[in-house]
Amino acid sequence: MRSLYSSILFVLFVLPLVSAQNGIVVFQSDFGLKDGAVSAMKGVAVGVSPSLTLLDLTHEIPPYNIWEAAYRLHQTVPYYPKGTIFVSVCDPGVGTERRSVVLLTKSGHYIVTPDNGTLTLIAEHLGIQEIRQIDEAINRLKNSGASYTFHGRDVYAYTAARLASKTITFAQVGPTLAADVVRLPYQKAVNEKGVVKGNIPVLDVQYGNVWSNIPKAMIDQLGVKHGETLHVQVFHKNDIRYDRRVLLVNTFGEAPTGDDVGYINSLLNFSIAVNQGNFSDKYKVFSGPDWTIVVSK
Amino acid sequence: MRSLYSSILFVLFVLPLVSAQNGIVVFQSDFGLKDGAVSAMKGVAVGVSPSLTLLDLTHEIPPYNIWEAAYRLHQTVPYYPKGTIFVSVCDPGVGTERRSVVLLTKSGHYIVTPDNGTLTLIAEHLGIQEIRQIDEAINRLKNSGASYTFHGRDVYAYTAARLASKTITFAQVGPTLAADVVRLPYQKAVNEKGVVKGNIPVLDVQYGNVWSNIPKAMIDQLGVKHGETLHVQVFHKNDIRYDRRVLLVNTFGEAPTGDDVGYINSLLNFSIAVNQGNFSDKYKVFSGPDWTIVVSK
Amino acid sequence: MRSLYSSILFVLFVLPLVSAQNGIVVFQSDFGLKDGAVSAMKGVAVGVSPSLTLLDLTHEIPPYNIWEAAYRLHQTVPYYPKGTIFVSVCDPGVGTERRSVVLLTKSGHYIVTPDNGTLTLIAEHLGIQEIRQIDEAINRLKNSGASYTFHGRDVYAYTAARLASKTITFAQVGPTLAADVVRLPYQKAVNEKGVVKGNIPVLDVQYGNVWSNIPKAMIDQLGVKHGETLHVQVFHKNDIRYDRRVLLVNTFGEAPTGDDVGYINSLLNFSIAVNQGNFSDKYKVFSGPDWTIVVSK
Repeated sequence: MRSLYSSILFVLFVLPLVSAQNGIVVFQSDFGLKDGAVSAMKGVAVGVSPSLTLLDLTHEIPPYNIWEAAYRLHQTVPYYPKGTIFVSVCDPGVGTERRSVVLLTKSGHYIVTPDNGTLTLIAEHLGIQEIRQIDEAINRLKNSGASYTFHGRDVYAYTAARLASKTITFAQVGPTLAADVVRLPYQKAVNEKGVVKGNIPVLDVQYGNVWSNIPKAMIDQLGVKHGETLHVQVFHKNDIRYDRRVLLVNTFGEAPTGDDVGYINSLLNFSIAVNQGNFSDKYKVFSGPDWTIVVSK
Repeated sequence: MRSLYSSILFVLFVLPLVSAQNGIVVFQSDFGLKDGAVSAMKGVAVGVSPSLTLLDLTHEIPPYNIWEAAYRLHQTVPYYPKGTIFVSVCDPGVGTERRSVVLLTKSGHYIVTPDNGTLTLIAEHLGIQEIRQIDEAINRLKNSGASYTFHGRDVYAYTAARLASKTITFAQVGPTLAADVVRLPYQKAVNEKGVVKGNIPVLDVQYGNVWSNIPKAMIDQLGVKHGETLHVQVFHKNDIRYDRRVLLVNTFGEAPTGDDVGYINSLLNFSIAVNQGNFSDKYKVFSGPDWTIVVSK
Repeated sequence: MRSLYSSILFVLFVLPLVSAQNGIVVFQSDFGLKDGAVSAMKGVAVGVSPSLTLLDLTHEIPPYNIWEAAYRLHQTVPYYPKGTIFVSVCDPGVGTERRSVVLLTKSGHYIVTPDNGTLTLIAEHLGIQEIRQIDEAINRLKNSGASYTFHGRDVYAYTAARLASKTITFAQVGPTLAADVVRLPYQKAVNEKGVVKGNIPVLDVQYGNVWSNIPKAMIDQLGVKHGETLHVQVFHKNDIRYDRRVLLVNTFGEAPTGDDVGYINSLLNFSIAVNQGNFSDKYKVFSGPDWTIVVSK
């Protein structure tokens, strides 16, 4: 009886957690689009199965910038349906001992990547359902053994396509690992007695807007309403780079062109911008672990 | 009898004008491809229906440049089959009172966009069959209400995907509007007693060729044959920037490398170029409403 | 009997050589992605058949650089399944007498392109099974006759889509040509008594690594093992631009950050790089027919 009971439990609760692949593969890399590298990855994927849907996140991750690869996944993965498989190749340690893995998130998304910090934010925000190491003895493009440097094509794209097309099951990726990933350190958002402090993880590069990791709720705690001003400071390490009061707006239309504004961005985090201008260029404010933003009433 | 007659008329003439969606969605924006914004729009679309075909027009519209967004649609939409749905997001007024609409052209194409001038040239050249305002109470991604700034993802991509996949009909987009759009003013091509005058709407950016809005027929009226020369002047406001005679060619191979040539471009408009060089760089000639080109015999 | 015997031979040996199209079309050009040109080509293709799979190689071939177009095809085509159709449009001679062709390689890939040197490396490495000239009287988008300058859209994309969707057979492309293509001259890799000499065909542009056309086997002949150093010189015409000993590594992790290294790249050719830096920027080493690399023990 116990066995039957276990089976029923397994079918009801465990099986649904292994999200069925939906045939969609989304590629991210730091390869750029000037040569054939991204296209070769897609060629390998359609070679596995011509009926896959192949899409892109971005291929303009700055070379070797694992932090930005982690951030772009965090920004984008939740907008795709469950069962989508992401391939992220930002891999300065290609050929070294870092592990090649497939992470299944609690939200039902799969990420195929070197475990080098790329999974930091996904693991934190979407949760780790299960993580498996890619067994390259099985999951590697045939006749690619002599190339040491293009795991993106020969291992990651190949494994992602086989998983997405159900040529292999998730279990056939390779052995289960302890449910943790390599994590990059970064300053989390805090409210210290009415002074909110956070990091500038990325710029909104196309417009030069400056995004923080400070959530809307923490700005709400300051008791500032939209249409009122906030005190905003930006530091690079210990140097102060910006120190002004800015208007908190819902939409850029509420402020004159050229004015600095604070707003809640599409990820619901506090951000600052020059209305129809480029904040980053104007004030020489950039992003990364060395940049801090401090907001108070 | 009148009712039957009306019904027959409706079936014969009106129904065919509502073009059946073909499952293809084409995206345009000023987002660039460096972050996850374009990919998030596509994630929302495949979340609505994984069987859609998702393509791109361009995402390199210069930030906030509505004129160029209008021009790229004009240049590209006619080459797609009827029933294709375009999403264009160049939206400096996001969150303000501009209307979010879906235009059905007389040619049977759908354009999902803010009505901020983006539809200027499409309305003029392809005609307005019907225009509907998006009812955001229905046609908005669930749980996206707290974000004020990413209508491209939460409203436009979502509505386009639902329409393309026939999850909703065109009527379910929202209420019909009067058949007009916001139009940007621009200099039209004219022939004033043998002097042809027009605007430089865009550059052929990859090569630096200068395109005008002067149609081939107006050049033909000048009585200049290919292999003969034309007098070409370019003005920025009132300043003359270029003043030379150029050879009218059918193909660049007809002139020596480095020579200036006039030709009819792929949109059948008069254009000028340096053969295998960059006219815009060489003569500092650019595009937009302030640039005028004057051509005579 | 002879006729029956011939038929059997034909079915057994000749038919399989005509590789069945797989519905995948891959586009390459020097158009860039800032305007609607690439999108218009895809619009024509989905107009022929909405069920085609449309992918990209790159559209960032430097304008008019036929050599790089040839190299990108060489780098990428072999990773796609048989029956894939490539469109390559780098066409400085558009409208002149160069032939428009479809090449079927011995590996079963189709390339639709002007025969202007673009096929140099594909013909050499994958072999010519059959080559046909496009009959533009049949294989040209309707009503496109007045445009002399956009064969990529009106002829190449259109023909590729018709072939990929089996609207036409390979024979219906047009008449068979003699099995040769226009070839660009370039320095081949040679081993002259222990001194290996080759060309720098392209840079790995995203990282600034310098790739050669010297195969791994020729480096092996020098008797240098990984972990040992090689003598590397780079010449631009007769000027020496680089002259150092570099460590031969399997993976960048084997050398300190900032060190110069030699390695075998993903195409199994000898390459040089600055570990996590940009070799090309640092030493002003570029690519093309004027660049030579010399390697010895």
